[in-house]
Amino acid sequence: MNVIEVLGRKRDGLEHSPDEIRFLLDSYLAKSIPDYQIAAWLMAVTTRGMTRAETLSLTQAMVASGEVLDLSGIPGFKVDKHSTGGVGDKVTLIAGPLAAACGVPVPKLSGRGLAHTGGTLDKLESVPGFRVELTPDEFIAQVRRVGLAVAAQSPRMVPADKALYALRDVTATVPSVPLIASSVMSKKLAAGADGIVLDVKSGRGAFMPDVPSAVELARLMVDIGEGAGRRTVALVTAMDNPLGRAVGNALEVREALAVLGGAGDQELRDVSVRVAAEMCRLAGVTRDPAEAIADGSALAKFEEMLAAQGGRLADGLPEAAVQVPLPAPGSGWVEAIDALEVGYASVELGAGRLRKDDPIDHAAGMVIGLQVGDRVEAGRPLAVLHAASRELTDRASERLLEAWRIVGHAVTRPPHILERVTAAVN
Amino acid sequence: MNVIEVLGRKRDGLEHSPDEIRFLLDSYLAKSIPDYQIAAWLMAVTTRGMTRAETLSLTQAMVASGEVLDLSGIPGFKVDKHSTGGVGDKVTLIAGPLAAACGVPVPKLSGRGLAHTGGTLDKLESVPGFRVELTPDEFIAQVRRVGLAVAAQSPRMVPADKALYALRDVTATVPSVPLIASSVMSKKLAAGADGIVLDVKSGRGAFMPDVPSAVELARLMVDIGEGAGRRTVALVTAMDNPLGRAVGNALEVREALAVLGGAGDQELRDVSVRVAAEMCRLAGVTRDPAEAIADGSALAKFEEMLAAQGGRLADGLPEAAVQVPLPAPGSGWVEAIDALEVGYASVELGAGRLRKDDPIDHAAGMVIGLQVGDRVEAGRPLAVLHAASRELTDRASERLLEAWRIVGHAVTRPPHILERVTAAVN
Repeated sequence: MNVIEVLGRKRDGLEHSPDEIRFLLDSYLAKSIPDYQIAAWLMAVTTRGMTRAETLSLTQAMVASGEVLDLSGIPGFKVDKHSTGGVGDKVTLIAGPLAAACGVPVPKLSGRGLAHTGGTLDKLESVPGFRVELTPDEFIAQVRRVGLAVAAQSPRMVPADKALYALRDVTATVPSVPLIASSVMSKKLAAGADGIVLDVKSGRGAFMPDVPSAVELARLMVDIGEGAGRRTVALVTAMDNPLGRAVGNALEVREALAVLGGAGDQELRDVSVRVAAEMCRLAGVTRDPAEAIADGSALAKFEEMLAAQGGRLADGLPEAAVQVPLPAPGSGWVEAIDALEVGYASVELGAGRLRKDDPIDHAAGMVIGLQVGDRVEAGRPLAVLHAASRELTDRASERLLEAWRIVGHAVTRPPHILERVTAAVN
Repeated sequence: MNVIEVLGRKRDGLEHSPDEIRFLLDSYLAKSIPDYQIAAWLMAVTTRGMTRAETLSLTQAMVASGEVLDLSGIPGFKVDKHSTGGVGDKVTLIAGPLAAACGVPVPKLSGRGLAHTGGTLDKLESVPGFRVELTPDEFIAQVRRVGLAVAAQSPRMVPADKALYALRDVTATVPSVPLIASSVMSKKLAAGADGIVLDVKSGRGAFMPDVPSAVELARLMVDIGEGAGRRTVALVTAMDNPLGRAVGNALEVREALAVLGGAGDQELRDVSVRVAAEMCRLAGVTRDPAEAIADGSALAKFEEMLAAQGGRLADGLPEAAVQVPLPAPGSGWVEAIDALEVGYASVELGAGRLRKDDPIDHAAGMVIGLQVGDRVEAGRPLAVLHAASRELTDRASERLLEAWRIVGHAVTRPPHILERVTAAVN
């Protein structure tokens, strides 16, 4: 096969055969095709698009590039959950224990935070002693025993994704729906679960800026999952405002504990229960996850999972040395809170990273006091900022004052779950 | 300026500023932007296109990347001529002497043949002793003295074109009209003439497969030339069939000598006179180039140019050891001769090269016996093949039998000059 001819086909908007896609990917990983040819191909894909069949072929070729987790040793219908990333998104920490408490085996491989979005592994690592690196055997044994494990993906899984993503990052080819879908779904397929619930975020604080593009991505990912023989469902959810009240690693674990304990933010609780319900439905489990909050079994499951991976909640979560309120500059109602600004402000506070190797401060972040729809009185705290120094909170405060949009009339909170996407009938 | 943001603009179909284009090109040549980023940009340009303003900016940035020839030492309005490349295209060898004989100074920098198309330098080098490498001083002095020089472009001129072309060649980004236009016109602008006549070939044997795309390229190149302050005109001509009867270097020089001597192929003579007339018109010279054939001055000018560059026509042009006819397989009329097949067959005979460093046999090629519109009797020679061995002619014969389309009805020769393109009024 001639690489220039294959590139020419995508340049001209034609459809690749599965062989062509495997040829490109395998040759690239074997270093017989140089970066500049794959860079040109990635741009052709970004500008010309790919069909569902091509995207499925690419996803499967990516899965085949590395190790695949064999979960057949775990009895039952295993369900994974994935979020495309948002600000304050700790749904995994709540929905995972909820589903597991209902009897769904939840084997979850997660990633770290990048840019303005947090990562589940970083959040869990704020629990003293918690280990995210499990061997496949440890991981499988824990799901068998506890019903839930959350661990880091092995670097030997889907190496093609790592290679392609590094090149996409420097060639302006990140915002391509088929490339995003194949990146996410290759990792989900390699992780081996029978069912997958996707939470596709849409809005200012998400990678998909609007609902139509989020729905497009959701449909494509569902089709890939189903095309690869996995039961897959997606919820498209709003990420214009941060989710819940806590943003920052230990702060979010604390909020998850509160929700699992029956308290906490209503919207966060509702969406977590809904995600867990989708996980149960895929697994054929009829129990209502809300009951697992009421009877305490979900909180117990979370604590069991933390302990199984070495976490010592009793030692206490880290607390920031500086905790200062951000006073409201005027009165009215909160119409919106810019999730992107909140995300970047929390990075400035130390809670996140802009580059892969940046260190993070697990205690840093903020707790939102006044949410969308809340009545504001001037001087009352919009949020409380947590950081290691006053210098950091001062800098973030400036940025954050712009994030709250306060208006002179009452505001109704917009819906959080925007769309449910299941397999197309075809 | 951030390279990923600039790539993102072209990815999204936006227009680059002149600064963005200079930034990309200069950074690439300074090696501060790697191949893979420019490869992605070239693909974005190929799929999204560029405006006229962008293409002019790119062309001017390319010109500025290297040396520019200063022809101010040559009195008069200097006119250059360029063909986008075809099979049997020896128009430069005829139109150059015609225009020079009419009093137009013709400073012509040329290239070598590649793939199925021949190159003027290769053709001239079939004349024993002919030198294509002239210093700028030698080149200018010869145009002053003789009125005509045909030499190789210095590698110090437009280095950006060489760098970009090498990358385009391996990233499937050759067939982009703005990139083709900027490549051609950057070399023409750097060559310093006041006026430029472009011969844009269209058809099976050309890089532009159809008339609309050839006209689009012609318009864009004319606009770039005029935008850079040069008088520019383009003819769009047919390259479905080979031009004239000879294909191959010494054979084409011989045919040019015949036409300049008042004999030879009528269509080749007509198009050469027309190109020379366009050159005269740009220079404000009113003499009819056909007169320069009739009075022998054009032939004398060609011989003077050859001698000035060391050529010894009296030593004879090389002749192939093997010359065998290709007999017609049936009777009828020639409806078409596939120029692309003829071009590749002549490469097989030794007349051309597929890679830049391939050696060529100046004597090899073919002379077409039966042209489009001619009556065919079975067994009569369609062409006479010239090569170093019978093995080569046998192999080429097989390929060539497919090239002649012979039909059972009389055929009218289609027009050769399809369109004349001058500056848009704006």
